[in-house]
Amino acid sequence: MARSLLSSIRTPADVRALRPGQLDALAQEIRTFLVDQVARTGGHLGPNLGVVELTIAMHRVFSSPRDTFVFDTGHQSYVHKLLTGRQDFAALRRRDGLSGYPSRAESEHDVVENSHASTALSWADGLAKANELQGRSDRHVVAVIGDGALTGGMAWEALNNIAAAQDRRLVVVVNDNGRSYAPTIGGLAMHLDALRTTQSYENVLSWGKRTLTRSGPPGRLAYDALHGLKKGIKDVVAPQGMFEDLGLKYVGPVDGHDEQAVERALRRAQAFGGPVIVHVITEKGRGYTPAEQDVADRFHAVGVIHPETGLPVAPSRFGWTSVFADEIVRIGRRRPDVVAVTAAMLQPVGLAPFAAEFPDRVFDVGIAEQHAATSAAGLAFGGLHPVVAVYATFLNRAFDQVLMDVALHRAGVTFVLDRAGITGDDGASHNGMWDMAMLAIVPGLRLAAPRDEATLRTALREAVDVDDAPTVVRYPKSALVAEIPALEDLDGLDVLARHEAADAGARRVLVVGVGSMVGTGLEVAEQLAAHGLHVTVVDPRWVLPVPEALTKLVGEHDHVVTVEDGLVDGGVGSHVAQRAVEQGVVVPVQAFGVPREFLPHATRDQLVTALRLTPGDITRDVLTALSRR
Amino acid sequence: MARSLLSSIRTPADVRALRPGQLDALAQEIRTFLVDQVARTGGHLGPNLGVVELTIAMHRVFSSPRDTFVFDTGHQSYVHKLLTGRQDFAALRRRDGLSGYPSRAESEHDVVENSHASTALSWADGLAKANELQGRSDRHVVAVIGDGALTGGMAWEALNNIAAAQDRRLVVVVNDNGRSYAPTIGGLAMHLDALRTTQSYENVLSWGKRTLTRSGPPGRLAYDALHGLKKGIKDVVAPQGMFEDLGLKYVGPVDGHDEQAVERALRRAQAFGGPVIVHVITEKGRGYTPAEQDVADRFHAVGVIHPETGLPVAPSRFGWTSVFADEIVRIGRRRPDVVAVTAAMLQPVGLAPFAAEFPDRVFDVGIAEQHAATSAAGLAFGGLHPVVAVYATFLNRAFDQVLMDVALHRAGVTFVLDRAGITGDDGASHNGMWDMAMLAIVPGLRLAAPRDEATLRTALREAVDVDDAPTVVRYPKSALVAEIPALEDLDGLDVLARHEAADAGARRVLVVGVGSMVGTGLEVAEQLAAHGLHVTVVDPRWVLPVPEALTKLVGEHDHVVTVEDGLVDGGVGSHVAQRAVEQGVVVPVQAFGVPREFLPHATRDQLVTALRLTPGDITRDVLTALSRR
Repeated sequence: MARSLLSSIRTPADVRALRPGQLDALAQEIRTFLVDQVARTGGHLGPNLGVVELTIAMHRVFSSPRDTFVFDTGHQSYVHKLLTGRQDFAALRRRDGLSGYPSRAESEHDVVENSHASTALSWADGLAKANELQGRSDRHVVAVIGDGALTGGMAWEALNNIAAAQDRRLVVVVNDNGRSYAPTIGGLAMHLDALRTTQSYENVLSWGKRTLTRSGPPGRLAYDALHGLKKGIKDVVAPQGMFEDLGLKYVGPVDGHDEQAVERALRRAQAFGGPVIVHVITEKGRGYTPAEQDVADRFHAVGVIHPETGLPVAPSRFGWTSVFADEIVRIGRRRPDVVAVTAAMLQPVGLAPFAAEFPDRVFDVGIAEQHAATSAAGLAFGGLHPVVAVYATFLNRAFDQVLMDVALHRAGVTFVLDRAGITGDDGASHNGMWDMAMLAIVPGLRLAAPRDEATLRTALREAVDVDDAPTVVRYPKSALVAEIPALEDLDGLDVLARHEAADAGARRVLVVGVGSMVGTGLEVAEQLAAHGLHVTVVDPRWVLPVPEALTKLVGEHDHVVTVEDGLVDGGVGSHVAQRAVEQGVVVPVQAFGVPREFLPHATRDQLVTALRLTPGDITRDVLTALSRR
Repeated sequence: MARSLLSSIRTPADVRALRPGQLDALAQEIRTFLVDQVARTGGHLGPNLGVVELTIAMHRVFSSPRDTFVFDTGHQSYVHKLLTGRQDFAALRRRDGLSGYPSRAESEHDVVENSHASTALSWADGLAKANELQGRSDRHVVAVIGDGALTGGMAWEALNNIAAAQDRRLVVVVNDNGRSYAPTIGGLAMHLDALRTTQSYENVLSWGKRTLTRSGPPGRLAYDALHGLKKGIKDVVAPQGMFEDLGLKYVGPVDGHDEQAVERALRRAQAFGGPVIVHVITEKGRGYTPAEQDVADRFHAVGVIHPETGLPVAPSRFGWTSVFADEIVRIGRRRPDVVAVTAAMLQPVGLAPFAAEFPDRVFDVGIAEQHAATSAAGLAFGGLHPVVAVYATFLNRAFDQVLMDVALHRAGVTFVLDRAGITGDDGASHNGMWDMAMLAIVPGLRLAAPRDEATLRTALREAVDVDDAPTVVRYPKSALVAEIPALEDLDGLDVLARHEAADAGARRVLVVGVGSMVGTGLEVAEQLAAHGLHVTVVDPRWVLPVPEALTKLVGEHDHVVTVEDGLVDGGVGSHVAQRAVEQGVVVPVQAFGVPREFLPHATRDQLVTALRLTPGDITRDVLTALSRR
């Protein structure tokens, strides 16, 4: 395939050097490249196809890194990577390959790596303030944010601050495709829609002038009144009201696939010298038929696909999500009080079947985890049982609301955390590894980490039965494992294996498996047993707070091993240890989990190996600890 | 003093039964009562003086608890308490007395107890959804939110959702006094100001009709055009743009001290049957001269004062804040790159002197902790060192931003947490007891808990010298203690006491004191020494991550006691224990701190006693633990 233009681009200066007539061809090469490459590796295809012309225009009008580009959520930075010297996409999102997000380690053109939504405008506000204070007032900060991300509260906090300083050079590009993961909802979406669908303000004003001035002096008076009311008319015809009322200059709407039009809009914004909103209308998945035809999410993120058809090469990995999707519908049939809440991710978290069957009982609140949690407390006070389904990493954004609105008020709200633990290829900010350590400090909160399909279904049913405290059910992104049956129920703990040593005096080890690490725990137990130890493996299923039965069992052993795929600092193991000490039980609790560090992007297996969380690693460490005593 | 009307009010029905002519007298009685009572106990005086007429009108137009009232932040609910059968304010904010916030235990008229700002609209959205789904569509939810709280992102998330459903009966009363703790900032404040200062829309429309229709047919044509552009004109004259663009009906502005006008506005909102904003202009501190004359914060929250003069009876308790206020100015003189960030609390956190000396280097971002944290990451990338000063409990609202924006990007940002630990009389949601457990899981973050003035000054200087990771300095609300000198520096740990036992074979106990609990640790050590134990007391000052020297020292003792005024689950003690186990050190670490529960309002001393955290309690528990082994 012809990539003569794209391959000639080494730096943004090369983009600026192109003739306008070459830009359509460049855009076409980039689209072909993206479909071809992302089909092989998986990645965020739809969002990047939507910002090809926008990114080209940004690099022609502004000069990165002198001007600072900030991409909200960052998954739409592939085109930016291509134009800043990064064209080897062969190992995209794989270990030692390009990150799927901006990365300071990759390029001086990248600043914000965080993939959580709605943060870019706050970054931009800080960067612009620093530019101003340090005498770099000729530089621009350019933030790109989706219309979906504008529904997040942080974006509002930032807009309010950005508007307050009229002399900072800050351009907010609203990349409006009418959707984030799902169509954007709420009052803001209606407002943006009004902006998009009305004809241009200038046309109507000139019509008014023609009509009224023809009618003589009184008509001229009326025209003058109208002209005096210019801003008022403008709000009718193209109601920029919201942004302009906040004191923000507004440019748009602009066709985001007309590169020259986007350039013109950005140059106007650049010349203004203060905070400006540039409203760019784009189409997610633009130029790739399978994405354009996908109503559900426009190929937001794909696995490895056939480039022509867009069909996945491997079957879906989201088995855990499917089980939740099925069980919550069953629960919904039985329990009319159960309602679902999603933060703009109806499809990815598995709520689509529930929404199809109970359309009145599902609430998409936008990318607004704080509102999801607190409005759920309100729903619970009103007599309903809300199930808030989010990716584990995003619940971090509502910690205060889980604590102060849900838990303090003893609200019966169930949080379902998908993609908990190590997720891998999406990089540091997508790993759902903080949930258990964070939630362990919330009074009254109960957390279940099911190990397989059956325990997930049971945990969900148990969770929605709790009406006076928050409950959490968390499960991983990794493949659903075969059922792991319990040998017996020991005061609520599932005993999964017992290895009796030949030597009755052998030391007694208790292995506590948490969620998706139960399988690892079972393998560790087998290896320890091969070394002549008594070993028992239990899965408490409801791991927080630590069940009393578990603390009792700890006291009956010589050594305890806990295995979890959340943070080890402050994780389940540390709480098991703390309860034991409080009971006067002096048994070492050796806790295995994710260390307190940000993980690079790689596969889950690669990370598990790198973190020394394989059964072999854990067994060796346990034997070492035992040998020291 | 005459309180004949007020004392006759037992329930809201009694308020409704009053004749309009009696309401001014009731308002006057309530103001007199508030000044008289709050002067004796301390409390939120200014906010409650501002909502007297508003609260009366709410209870006359709506019918609580059938209609649900939600007060944002809740500290302005005193009048509501008076009108719902709670007129004994003698023990306000004291143990067994009335809470300073709404309390479900006190009354069926109270729903939301959380005192964190900007949450009310999310509660209201959930409550209105529950009403709709459960067939209670004749009931109203009425949320009262300040203009300052509207700068918080959650409020935006909620407005966006509220606007999406036109048939839910939800009234948002914007209590606009132009300030929260400090004057409200940003684009929103400018917009509200525009609303306040323009003349009424109806007057201008009727002028337009008179003028244009007099001029014959063409003028009538122009009038019709104007009339068709009604919304446009309305936006010029009283630019409600923002709320109406979002699809929210707007009523106002209304003089919040004209009870009849507020009643009329609320009745219009009630009749509308969908989501409505009622914009009420009030004066914080209204009717109390000392408050009206207090430019800084209008008597937002006071201690015990002389009712006539408003002067405090006892000297200020905020010694820790004053030390910070002084030291940050000194640092600012030496380090031009140090800038300060506050979330609408310049005065309370002690940044006023810094702002006076370096007005360009302080950023008040509104009640927007998320934006405070992330914009600080931007400031740091831009070459500055931001110091974000907040109350400890409010940093919970920015956990994700501290983690994903500041820590992930290794930004040199210093967070200063005032009122950390047990604060007491403000009740459950003001205790700053979650910070250490929450922040302990943030990679790279370092946290100092100074014990006295000298260590606070040192910690601040050390914190601003760290430029590649977040640093946190936290201190309590309680009185500043006398200096506690160190005997020696042991690899960075301050050794504060050594008690050698007469019996050389006596067990060796290590006491680790954290911040304001160092004094307790010293007393515990003395009592343990009196029981014949070797005891050493250390203060690591930088307590997170656990210093290696401390882990080493743990290994040289037989028993370790940690004492902190943060959450014991996941607190410093638990991390000391975890590091020890990882190093193969098997020494029991007995951790003392705040249990995982919400604390009732009471004094700090009462809570410390109730939680068994006095030196005597701790000593007894340690001796018990030692006797078991």
